[in-house]
Amino acid sequence: MDQKDSATIRVFSLNCWGVRYFSKRCTQRFTMIADMLLKEEHNIILLQEVWSEKDYLFLRKKLASSHSHCHYFKSGVIGSGLAIFSKYRIQDTLLYRYSLNGYPYMAHHGDWFGGKAVGLAILNIGTLTANVYVTHLHAEYSRERDTYLPHRVVQAWELQQFIRHTSAGADMVVLGGDLNMHPQDLGTRLLMSYTGLRDAYAEAEQFDGCDNGLTLILDNPFVSKKMVMPFERGIRIDYILFKVAQTFVLFQITISSQTLVLYFQGSCQADIHCAAMCTTKGSVSGHPLPYSDHEALTAELKLDAHAVPQAGGDFQSKSRHCSGDDVAKLVDILTEARTEVKVGIHCAERMRRTATRMVAMGLALLLLELAIAAVPWLALGAEQAFPHTSFYLLAALCFAILLGTSLLYVFYTMELKSLQGTEDQMRLAVGGLQEKLREFPVAQPGGTQKKPLEELEPNVFCPED
Amino acid sequence: MDQKDSATIRVFSLNCWGVRYFSKRCTQRFTMIADMLLKEEHNIILLQEVWSEKDYLFLRKKLASSHSHCHYFKSGVIGSGLAIFSKYRIQDTLLYRYSLNGYPYMAHHGDWFGGKAVGLAILNIGTLTANVYVTHLHAEYSRERDTYLPHRVVQAWELQQFIRHTSAGADMVVLGGDLNMHPQDLGTRLLMSYTGLRDAYAEAEQFDGCDNGLTLILDNPFVSKKMVMPFERGIRIDYILFKVAQTFVLFQITISSQTLVLYFQGSCQADIHCAAMCTTKGSVSGHPLPYSDHEALTAELKLDAHAVPQAGGDFQSKSRHCSGDDVAKLVDILTEARTEVKVGIHCAERMRRTATRMVAMGLALLLLELAIAAVPWLALGAEQAFPHTSFYLLAALCFAILLGTSLLYVFYTMELKSLQGTEDQMRLAVGGLQEKLREFPVAQPGGTQKKPLEELEPNVFCPED
Repeated sequence: MDQKDSATIRVFSLNCWGVRYFSKRCTQRFTMIADMLLKEEHNIILLQEVWSEKDYLFLRKKLASSHSHCHYFKSGVIGSGLAIFSKYRIQDTLLYRYSLNGYPYMAHHGDWFGGKAVGLAILNIGTLTANVYVTHLHAEYSRERDTYLPHRVVQAWELQQFIRHTSAGADMVVLGGDLNMHPQDLGTRLLMSYTGLRDAYAEAEQFDGCDNGLTLILDNPFVSKKMVMPFERGIRIDYILFKVAQTFVLFQITISSQTLVLYFQGSCQADIHCAAMCTTKGSVSGHPLPYSDHEALTAELKLDAHAVPQAGGDFQSKSRHCSGDDVAKLVDILTEARTEVKVGIHCAERMRRTATRMVAMGLALLLLELAIAAVPWLALGAEQAFPHTSFYLLAALCFAILLGTSLLYVFYTMELKSLQGTEDQMRLAVGGLQEKLREFPVAQPGGTQKKPLEELEPNVFCPED
Repeated sequence: MDQKDSATIRVFSLNCWGVRYFSKRCTQRFTMIADMLLKEEHNIILLQEVWSEKDYLFLRKKLASSHSHCHYFKSGVIGSGLAIFSKYRIQDTLLYRYSLNGYPYMAHHGDWFGGKAVGLAILNIGTLTANVYVTHLHAEYSRERDTYLPHRVVQAWELQQFIRHTSAGADMVVLGGDLNMHPQDLGTRLLMSYTGLRDAYAEAEQFDGCDNGLTLILDNPFVSKKMVMPFERGIRIDYILFKVAQTFVLFQITISSQTLVLYFQGSCQADIHCAAMCTTKGSVSGHPLPYSDHEALTAELKLDAHAVPQAGGDFQSKSRHCSGDDVAKLVDILTEARTEVKVGIHCAERMRRTATRMVAMGLALLLLELAIAAVPWLALGAEQAFPHTSFYLLAALCFAILLGTSLLYVFYTMELKSLQGTEDQMRLAVGGLQEKLREFPVAQPGGTQKKPLEELEPNVFCPED
């Protein structure tokens, strides 16, 4: 009765480093990328840092024959940089802009101008619905003094929220992109444990690529030692993550005085695993330069779809957020994240206070100048007036200070609102989790709480008497 | 076998007009609102324009005994103004900021500074999950020359997208707020036909309120004739909309060589209808002034939940997007919306070109001034130099022009990106709908296409031979 459907989905992800007139050999590299993509024929291509629409249009033209469905996510001044090319029909798209993304005055870091976001494309893979997400989080410029950590934690929080809330109707979820976070970083743990996404690198049956799955390596000529410090060989910050829908639906029906209890997984059951994964290793054979400063990732996901869902089955092993330990772990991660966000709130408040003081100082300076200028004007007999040049220069300085610091005040207020909003949401989430935790039987330290799993007994067909 | 669960959910929505130091009698009105809410004991309270957090905290304190769950959505400089109070536990929240929301230089309209958004709160109502949305769209300042129409259409598009993509896991959906759109406006049609939300006013079995459900009326002393022009008595722009989950899931199972075909509606079937609705009518008995310039809305939603889903049933009457006519209607609305967005793109492009010209003019003026100033400096013999005061004033003017127009250029670029992004998404949606339309049999003009509904035959239990 089962119509078993097996498919291999090849997912590709690359941060293209496509800043025109700034990134080295940009045009040449995009030609190389297009040729490779045309040859490799991946099913889903997720690109980041395609900052110029011209480069996107170039890729679209080149890949028209192989990938007829594509979408470029527009956002901010220079765009979100996110693009998706697909062999499957794109049914719908949605973009979510992160509420925090660095500081405009840190122009040399440039993140603020990028309008970073997460893009969602809903694809039809046969009878299944796949939610494919592509994103790029704020860069980490210093491992020791990472001033952007609260911003990245907020982004990771918003990313997991967006994925969770939009994927309820999906049969499978794929996320690809440059997360700018190491595998054990707070944001990665927050994202993975909340969404239940699985790491293609960690689960791949076969792997061919850099040691430890590194994606920003010193062997790449575009990468400097400073970019990966204090790590000697490189870092892993690009990911392909995936999962199948894991909503359990319990149905109980009575047919001719017999009770049937059924458990279904999502709207259409599917099994997924990562058969193989590979990354580029700094250089590309036959080419003088690599595709980008990041390594390219390819994951081969094997999907076993059952057109008809199977009752019971091995759902127990895949059931998530069911054990008390899992919930306790989530509470720990959330507490850590809240601390980071609170540090951010503290910093933003301090900066806003400084901005307020600067506004006051600018005003005082202006008043002082006006007073000095007014003295000779009032004392009509005085011969020497305030020198014109100095007067205008000082006035211009005062206005510049007032304008700049007022803008900073507004900016820090917005930052504060976003951070406080996230903290509110996290507090709500911790409250909910703690309530859930109380429902579990007294914790056996180190042991997994079985109760909720036992409640979900598999596929029972029992006569009523 | 069915555990029938019936509940009445009283939903309240009000645009509070809470601009401190600007809105009339703000503090007094918030006290009135708090007293009324405490007395009325609505289940869900959706407020807009609570711009000051102090007012929210005041309401939270007053309603602590009656509504223990609440959330204030923080966004932008002065906040999103959105708040929710609930008798049900708030499980999770999410905020989506609209990508377009007026112009910063239209400071007297003030919408841009509001950071308008849609807030989502996920509530547990018994065994059901309710997605409750609260929003406030850009105001319409002139019916004849509505320059903000493309922005409002983009907001309506983003609102329906956000609701559709986040409500797949919900059993019921409620949206309350000030949409700033009339019932037959393009944005309202776009929102309602795409999401399938039903209008509480239109469906209410009993209604007590202003004629035609008006929510901004001349009888309200805070409302001027200009605000509702060219309509004589008032306009209807505030809504409470609702629906139950309508995902059909088809299951087919074999039990002891018998085939069972079942159709389920959502994860947990529920029926909903609006038993009663009422609005305030300009004044409040026993008080010298109304709660706000908008009228307050209360809808009584009757929810019949079945803990166990019923197979078959009356899904046919509720089935959405099934007929060719429905799809054709959606295509028409989308085409109209695309036209509006294209008008917006055209305007934004024209404004950006004007900004470019202004930047060029500012630069030319600066160069001219420098040239004039350089002449006496070069011709050393000249006696009369450029007068200092004029020089500095002119230079300041040039810099102000350059700064202002550059900012405008950046702003229009961002506006253009958002509009183009929406147009891309709409084009994708029209393409998908047209494909769906082709799947239907040749259209019988005026007649509803029955095929897909007939395919969904109710609850069949048939032996295999």
